[in-house]
Amino acid sequence: MADVGTALAEAVGEEHVLSGDAVPEDYGRDESLGVAPARPGWVVRPADAAQVAAVLRVATAHRLPVTARGAGTGLSGAAVPRPGGLVVSFERMNRVLEIDTGGQVAVVQPGVTLAELDAATAAEGLVYPIFPGEGGASVGGTVATNAGGMHAVKEGVTRHHVLGLEAVLATGEVIRTGGRYVKTSTGYDLTQLIVGSEGTLALVTEVTLRLRPRLPHRAGVLAPFPGTESVTAAVPRLTGGGLDPLVLEYVDVIAMAAITENAGLDLGVPERVRAAAGAYLLVVLENRSAERLDEDVQTLGEELAGLGALDAYVLRGDSLGKLVTAREKAFWAARNAGANAIVDAVVPRASLARFFEAVPAIAGRHGALVGGCGHAGDGNVHLSVFQPDPEALTRVMDELLEAAADLGGTISGEHGIGREKIRHFRALENPAKVDLMRRIKRSFDPDGILNPGVLFG
Amino acid sequence: MADVGTALAEAVGEEHVLSGDAVPEDYGRDESLGVAPARPGWVVRPADAAQVAAVLRVATAHRLPVTARGAGTGLSGAAVPRPGGLVVSFERMNRVLEIDTGGQVAVVQPGVTLAELDAATAAEGLVYPIFPGEGGASVGGTVATNAGGMHAVKEGVTRHHVLGLEAVLATGEVIRTGGRYVKTSTGYDLTQLIVGSEGTLALVTEVTLRLRPRLPHRAGVLAPFPGTESVTAAVPRLTGGGLDPLVLEYVDVIAMAAITENAGLDLGVPERVRAAAGAYLLVVLENRSAERLDEDVQTLGEELAGLGALDAYVLRGDSLGKLVTAREKAFWAARNAGANAIVDAVVPRASLARFFEAVPAIAGRHGALVGGCGHAGDGNVHLSVFQPDPEALTRVMDELLEAAADLGGTISGEHGIGREKIRHFRALENPAKVDLMRRIKRSFDPDGILNPGVLFG
Ligand SMILES: Cc1cc2nc3c(=O)[nH]c(=O)nc-3n(C[C@H](O)[C@H](O)[C@H](O)COP(=O)(O)OP(=O)(O)OC[C@H]3O[C@@H](n4cnc5c(N)ncnc54)[C@H](O)[C@@H]3O)c2cc1C
Ligand SMILES: Cc1cc2nc3c(=O)[nH]c(=O)nc-3n(C[C@H](O)[C@H](O)[C@H](O)COP(=O)(O)OP(=O)(O)OC[C@H]3O[C@@H](n4cnc5c(N)ncnc54)[C@H](O)[C@@H]3O)c2cc1C
Repeated sequence: MADVGTALAEAVGEEHVLSGDAVPEDYGRDESLGVAPARPGWVVRPADAAQVAAVLRVATAHRLPVTARGAGTGLSGAAVPRPGGLVVSFERMNRVLEIDTGGQVAVVQPGVTLAELDAATAAEGLVYPIFPGEGGASVGGTVATNAGGMHAVKEGVTRHHVLGLEAVLATGEVIRTGGRYVKTSTGYDLTQLIVGSEGTLALVTEVTLRLRPRLPHRAGVLAPFPGTESVTAAVPRLTGGGLDPLVLEYVDVIAMAAITENAGLDLGVPERVRAAAGAYLLVVLENRSAERLDEDVQTLGEELAGLGALDAYVLRGDSLGKLVTAREKAFWAARNAGANAIVDAVVPRASLARFFEAVPAIAGRHGALVGGCGHAGDGNVHLSVFQPDPEALTRVMDELLEAAADLGGTISGEHGIGREKIRHFRALENPAKVDLMRRIKRSFDPDGILNPGVLFG
Repeated sequence: MADVGTALAEAVGEEHVLSGDAVPEDYGRDESLGVAPARPGWVVRPADAAQVAAVLRVATAHRLPVTARGAGTGLSGAAVPRPGGLVVSFERMNRVLEIDTGGQVAVVQPGVTLAELDAATAAEGLVYPIFPGEGGASVGGTVATNAGGMHAVKEGVTRHHVLGLEAVLATGEVIRTGGRYVKTSTGYDLTQLIVGSEGTLALVTEVTLRLRPRLPHRAGVLAPFPGTESVTAAVPRLTGGGLDPLVLEYVDVIAMAAITENAGLDLGVPERVRAAAGAYLLVVLENRSAERLDEDVQTLGEELAGLGALDAYVLRGDSLGKLVTAREKAFWAARNAGANAIVDAVVPRASLARFFEAVPAIAGRHGALVGGCGHAGDGNVHLSVFQPDPEALTRVMDELLEAAADLGGTISGEHGIGREKIRHFRALENPAKVDLMRRIKRSFDPDGILNPGVLFG
């Protein structure tokens, strides 16, 4: 058997294999706050599915643990490799292969970033409506984490837009799942199984995505509320009313201060209102007609007033764009402020109020500062937890995630389990279900070479 | 070990076990045109998940093949049991457990019919937007087949609305997947894996469904076109235009004659237009505002004229309802007319025209009459094939499904593979993929007791 380096060089070409000290540090980390970087033994940069298959055959032969890598912007340590393991970086597989305007479909390689895809679709009047706050994320990474973002309340998440995949199994077999259609009842849905599997089932080498018409008119309303209670009560009313908001974000006062300060943003909310505000709601509407949008903004303003908003500020164009961008950067604001952990729990929308009741009690009990913003429209709560003591931090995280689970929620809405939340996954999920997932994993990857240590630990 | 009858009686109560000649014939069949009924040895009617688990433990102990049964309206023979096997009928598990208006979620037992669910949601101003032409279908059956129907072009199919499941594995283990939320990145998506699995992976005992606001205003436009070419060319234009049609159905002249005659319907299309028409498009729009709907109908009419429609007839209220119902009954019309098989292929929307070019050639080659209607908006083509000679029929079906596959389509859009299309599934799918599905099947059902003979044969 050829040695690993030779075999990998045969698979992808010598110039696309890095090893030992030649591996830049970045390949060993992602943006997770809690997972330490690790040094891979090898990095390969394949050019196509055939090369990925060849790489996986080498990895299988050498029982080399394999970690796929998109842009490394993940927040759960899922792209952190095994020390000495193999990183398969998709940076060279970065082409938009086709924008099929009639079929409203994009076919892309996994290394394409969301920002690149957005530019390509905009040129055709279409949009891929998944905007997790990081335009540098790769399509492959967003597929593997089932990324969400602010538009999920209207558009759903990544899995709702992935129509088909080309993927390589650990054995090197290449399969195609789904296709350029929204419906099929032809066997098990392998597409949906691979979406969200964090690189543990198969490596994705091509993605077929559903696009939507890009609507030309957009406006936002920022509404301060007296407190979290009134905000959370408003959420189900706004999603049920038929206005079909594109964005429905909750921002608490701590997070609002952090993100506006971080972005140097003045929203024009008078000091008097700011002092009375306990939390904010940001609602964005879009429409293909400017008149209808205006009407809807009007209706929304009235609804917000009826739901107890202290005021309502209509934002358009640049000022809306700035606030949305600032909100997207909330993670950096929290990190810069020294946050020790990020919560990405989901609770049923109707239970948001009860979850937010529990938060200050948990924070208080363990001397932590907890604040945040979140995709309120779909019950996805992002909290930044400030508690430098590791033991106290552990307890805060345990209790917050338990509270979400007790309300019928779940551990991660969009960041994934990765290496970071394995303990919670084990503690809060039914063991029969986790065992079933392990068996499914084995049916894809019998030798367990794909991202070991992620999801199951 | 107790004998089967005693053990089943212990599991569900004696009065809910039928066996031998006491089994009504209906439990041995569904509505498939091509699959012969079979006589089960046993029928049980469990009351809850615990009883289903007990039944499956008995079946495992006795290696008894198990076929779940909803309403038996399936079109692929997936509910036809093994001769002498066990039918688990969900007829007693027929309660709507909750309509959560704030969360816009319904929690139901699998035996609830779509018509019952529609009544329950209507009372709350909500809707479960999946309307496969048969209101008598059970939620469990629609989950297991991933049923579609006419609203799929706007609302997607069953899988897009199933948020969570309670399901029993072959071993009798009960798991819960998903929950009252639209997003999660917490391990593999077992919900989506079970949806569409035709009773071969697990028995579903509870379903959590996403509901939508029920919009009060609806109108349809029926547009005759000179031929299939102009109709198929119009489809992608109408889906891409932003009017977001709820229904976008294609009906050819044969099917239009059959369904209007079957329903005794007069659409008021003058003889002159009827004679010139080669195919019809039915477009339905809905809106929460009557004025906006009127505007949109106007716009739609103009778009249709621009796309080559011969005319456009606006249908509202009763006359729209009657045509939709008649279209839903197209299957009965075809069956009454003596159809020998039904095609449920999907092709990429942009390839519809090429598929319809191929159809008459295939039909002609084998002396078959082929006509139909279909969910044009999502590329799902339903054709009725009239060819009583079994060998010629086989060749027509083979060639039609091959043509769909060659265009990047798939065998079944919404009816499933069942027992009817196994040969095509094997012939047209990548063996590596089918093997992977078999391994997944084993990870759920190691002894292969769940619906053997369905999907894999
Ligand atoms: C500022 C900021 C804001 C963010 N906001 C959001 C948000 O609102 N919503 C949200 O959902 N996420 C958010 N994220 C997280 C992040 O953008 C997503 O997790 C994204 O999906 C990661 O993409 P990536 O290309 O960086 O993947 P990586 O970090 O490189 O990898 C993530 C996972 O995908 C796997 N993977 C990558 N490529 C492939 C492939 N081709 N085949 C198989 N597996 C593969 C990796 O092995 C790993 O398991 C945010 C991140 C940042 C830094
Ligand atoms: C007139 C007519 C029109 C139709 N139009 C459409 C259409 O437009 N679109 C469409 O998609 N379908 C259509 N169908 C097909 C049919 O309605 C669907 O396939 C429906 O999903 C079947 O539901 P059922 O309850 O009758 O299931 P059944 O026929 O009883 O069973 C179907 C499958 O589901 C499995 N199953 C049932 N319950 C469970 C459970 N609790 N757990 C696990 N597995 C279970 C069975 O084992 C079987 O594999 C039509 C049928 C008719 C008769």
